Amino acid sequence: MSEHVAIVGGTGAIGLALAQRLAVAGCEVTIGSRDADRAAQAAADSGQPLISGTSNAQAAASAEVVFVCVPYSSQAATLKEISESLAEGTILVDTTVPLATNVGGKPTRTLGVPDGSAGQQAQALVPKGVTVVSGLHTVSAVLLAKLDEPLDEDTLLCSNDREAIARIAKIVELIPGLRAVDAGRLEIAKIAEQMTALMISMNIRHKTHTGVRITGLPGA
Amino acid sequence: MSEHVAIVGGTGAIGLALAQRLAVAGCEVTIGSRDADRAAQAAADSGQPLISGTSNAQAAASAEVVFVCVPYSSQAATLKEISESLAEGTILVDTTVPLATNVGGKPTRTLGVPDGSAGQQAQALVPKGVTVVSGLHTVSAVLLAKLDEPLDEDTLLCSNDREAIARIAKIVELIPGLRAVDAGRLEIAKIAEQMTALMISMNIRHKTHTGVRITGLPGA
Repeated sequence: MSEHVAIVGGTGAIGLALAQRLAVAGCEVTIGSRDADRAAQAAADSGQPLISGTSNAQAAASAEVVFVCVPYSSQAATLKEISESLAEGTILVDTTVPLATNVGGKPTRTLGVPDGSAGQQAQALVPKGVTVVSGLHTVSAVLLAKLDEPLDEDTLLCSNDREAIARIAKIVELIPGLRAVDAGRLEIAKIAEQMTALMISMNIRHKTHTGVRITGLPGA
Repeated sequence: MSEHVAIVGGTGAIGLALAQRLAVAGCEVTIGSRDADRAAQAAADSGQPLISGTSNAQAAASAEVVFVCVPYSSQAATLKEISESLAEGTILVDTTVPLATNVGGKPTRTLGVPDGSAGQQAQALVPKGVTVVSGLHTVSAVLLAKLDEPLDEDTLLCSNDREAIARIAKIVELIPGLRAVDAGRLEIAKIAEQMTALMISMNIRHKTHTGVRITGLPGA
C-alpha cells in the first residue's frame, strides 16, 4: 500500500513512533507540530526519507487520513488549529485518552468527558464531512518505538462509519503484529479509552508493557 | 485443589455454568438462590454430585470463598440478604456488571455507579473483615456453559488485597483455558466492568462470543 498519512502531534512519543512504523511499511508520512521547524527537524532526525515535517495545519491539509496524537489537554486546541485544513472526506483518527494525568491526577484514572469520550469530543469539533475513528488507545509508545520488534496486540477501532474503520484497519495493520478490531460505534470509545488506564494499572502491578488481544473473532 | 466455594445467584446462567466448571475441576460447590428449593433442584438437575443447593444466606455461610452472580439490579438486595452470613475473612467475588440493561437500556452501555463500580459498591455493603475481589466480567456465560470446550481468555481481577486476588486466581484457573490477571486495585473494577459492554459491542458487530487476553505479561 502506498498511503499518505498525516500525523498531527507527530513529534510526541506516540506520534513519532507511529510515523516511523508506517514509513517503514512504505507509507508517506507528514508529521505536524505547533512549531513547523520542530517537525521538520524531527523528520530529518528520523533518517527516514518517507517522513517530512511541517505545521499541524499543513500536515492536516496534506492527507486524506489524519492521526491526532496529542495529549487530551491539547486536543480541543489542536482540532481548532487544524479544523479549516481538514478537507471534506478526511478520516481523522483520534488517539487521545482523557487520563487524569492531564490535570495532575493518576494515570490509572480517567476524566469524565462532557461529550462521552475524547473520540466523541473530536467528532463534535471537526467540520461536517470529516469522519472520526477512535483508536490506538492501548498501544504502548515504548513498544511502538522498538521498530525492530513486532507488536503482539490488537487495537480497538470505534466509529459510526464502518468503511472508515476498514480503511484505518488496513493502515495500522501494516505494523507487524498489530491487528485492528472493529469495536463498534464511536460511543464505545468511552470504554476503549478507559482501557489505557487499565493497561497502565496492569503495567504498574506487573512491571511490564501490556497489550490487549480479543479472542473468539471469526477467522482469527 | 479441594476448595469449597459458594455461588450466590447460582441458578442463573453464569452462576450455574461456573458451578459446573468448578465442580468438574474437583471443587465442592454450594449454589444459592432466593428460593432454596430452586437451588436444590438445579443442583440435582446438574447431575454433578459435588454441587448442592440451598438458600443464598446458607450458601454464603458455607464457604470461605463466595461468588456473587446476580444481575446488578439485584446486587444490593442480595448482599443485604447474605450480609449476616458472611464470616470474617470471607472473600466475596463480585461478578456483577452495571449494564444499562438493568434499567431497560442497551447492553453496550453501562450505568454510573455512585460508589464508582459494582465492585466498590459490594465492598461498601459487606461487613468489615470481608474482602471483595471483582472479576469474571468478560467471561461469556454461553462459552462457560460448554463444559467440554476450553476457554481461550483471561479474566481481570481487581482488589485492594493482592493475596485475595492470588487465592481467587488459583480457583478460576481450574477452568481450562482461563487465566486470571491481577488488574490492580478495586477501583479499577470501574473499567473492568465496562469491558463487558465493550465485548457485547464486538459480539454484535462480529456475531460471536469474544474474550480478552492480555499480552506482554512476565512469564506468559
